[in-house]
Amino acid sequence: MSTAGLTFPEGVIAATLTPMHRDLSADIDMLVGHVRFLLENGCNGIALLGTTGEANSFSSTERKAILEGILLGGISPDKIVVGTGCCSFPETVELTNHAMSHGVGGVLMLPPFYYKQIDDDGLFEYFKLVLQKVDRVGLHIYLYNFPKLSGIAYTPALIGRLIDRYPAQIAGIKDSSGDFSNMSALARSFPEFRVYTGTEKFLLDLLNEGGAGTISATVNIYSNLAAEVYSKWQEGSKEASELQKKLTTRRTALDGIPFVPLLKAIIARRSGNDQWLHLRPPHHLFEPHVIGEFS
Amino acid sequence: MSTAGLTFPEGVIAATLTPMHRDLSADIDMLVGHVRFLLENGCNGIALLGTTGEANSFSSTERKAILEGILLGGISPDKIVVGTGCCSFPETVELTNHAMSHGVGGVLMLPPFYYKQIDDDGLFEYFKLVLQKVDRVGLHIYLYNFPKLSGIAYTPALIGRLIDRYPAQIAGIKDSSGDFSNMSALARSFPEFRVYTGTEKFLLDLLNEGGAGTISATVNIYSNLAAEVYSKWQEGSKEASELQKKLTTRRTALDGIPFVPLLKAIIARRSGNDQWLHLRPPHHLFEPHVIGEFS
Repeated sequence: MSTAGLTFPEGVIAATLTPMHRDLSADIDMLVGHVRFLLENGCNGIALLGTTGEANSFSSTERKAILEGILLGGISPDKIVVGTGCCSFPETVELTNHAMSHGVGGVLMLPPFYYKQIDDDGLFEYFKLVLQKVDRVGLHIYLYNFPKLSGIAYTPALIGRLIDRYPAQIAGIKDSSGDFSNMSALARSFPEFRVYTGTEKFLLDLLNEGGAGTISATVNIYSNLAAEVYSKWQEGSKEASELQKKLTTRRTALDGIPFVPLLKAIIARRSGNDQWLHLRPPHHLFEPHVIGEFS
Repeated sequence: MSTAGLTFPEGVIAATLTPMHRDLSADIDMLVGHVRFLLENGCNGIALLGTTGEANSFSSTERKAILEGILLGGISPDKIVVGTGCCSFPETVELTNHAMSHGVGGVLMLPPFYYKQIDDDGLFEYFKLVLQKVDRVGLHIYLYNFPKLSGIAYTPALIGRLIDRYPAQIAGIKDSSGDFSNMSALARSFPEFRVYTGTEKFLLDLLNEGGAGTISATVNIYSNLAAEVYSKWQEGSKEASELQKKLTTRRTALDGIPFVPLLKAIIARRSGNDQWLHLRPPHHLFEPHVIGEFS
């Protein structure tokens, strides 16, 4: 699929980690280096400050500084989608306006995730309020569906209402539900709406259903392999299927392990740079049993 | 039980609602009026900016202004425990230092609630970091255990570790787990640690087990009745038991209904002031079937 007017790429998008100094402040130079590495190794774009980037462990002030930092470091804003969905609408509005004023390709929006027993009407009211208060010119929102962490699902019915009301702004979804039937149904139901799978296990299958690609944590450590699947699919090559099997096997080996400490541990081992081991609590360091296979 | 050095009261504590203007900014005058009403109608203290106060729908800046506003309005800081637990440690530190600099009776701390698959070690690291960064003199932390919303439980093992490490700071818990066996076990295991039940259904039973009282949303609408249970229990009167039955019946009628819109609707009806109906999304207005019984 392709959607007119969207600058953010389809394909393989890494939800980047956020490297830190010993004092747990973000290390912008290291982050710029890592993002550049990902873009040079097969990633079409970057999701900044998502779950993997420990977004919710940073204050709004810090989040704005991190985005500014990587743009100053020379990363093209078109390649960036940035997480701006907070529990409170004033913070969501503030981060969204900040991101758009820096020309990013889009924002990735969690639903407000503290309260539960929340229905579609409540979420629709929330989006209505946010969209009243942000600059909507050029705004592209990618919904961030991760019910296991947020406790809130973007239902197909709600997505349909949002697209009807805000067709120019509601650009797509990162679906981290892990439910392929949900993402393929979204791709089929809303052809102008970009559906990225949150796990690259479904990359090829979702592309074949009209999906846009993957926005994934784990492609931080094997972006080239995911990119090969995508490019072989674009070429219509049968090799895509074999490569997807390999990608799925690698990804399946990581099932059930908390991603943030896992990925930081793997990259620390691989790079020989222990600064990668710094994490903000409540995440903490551990020695994943699978680390050897990836380092 | 009684704990030396604690200024915040035991007994009946209302987790106050936050009244709002039409533009959804907090109406401080109305909030001061409501808090004063609660304190004059049986409440020993107030939990400000908890779940019921829509804390997580306000930005940090707004949360600080709301606390300052009610203190300027003449409410005694000793009577206030204020919610300061955010997802990110910098915001938790900022709100906690702000609250303590205003002399409040304590802070009510949610665990960092976005990430899941979090273990006791991760939560302990989080508290260690926060307690390194706040002014610990006179700081009294009440843990806010509400796993249905936060997705994270404060386990007895973690609570024990926190009390061992920070005996002067870890003052108590609001246990909204709904699990009486959990709260009574905490009250018995940690005699210097104040255990408040999150539902007044268990008020009398928990007092009899050495608990401190209740910090509850629903006492916004029948604080006097809860206060009668507490005072009869203090007097050793057998009437406490009959009053508790009445309190439990009233509370049980509200089971399963989202509290924030419910309580705002009841108070709007009762007071004839529709300004009470303003809510921040994702909460939204509805007409609860039980409203007639309480208005």
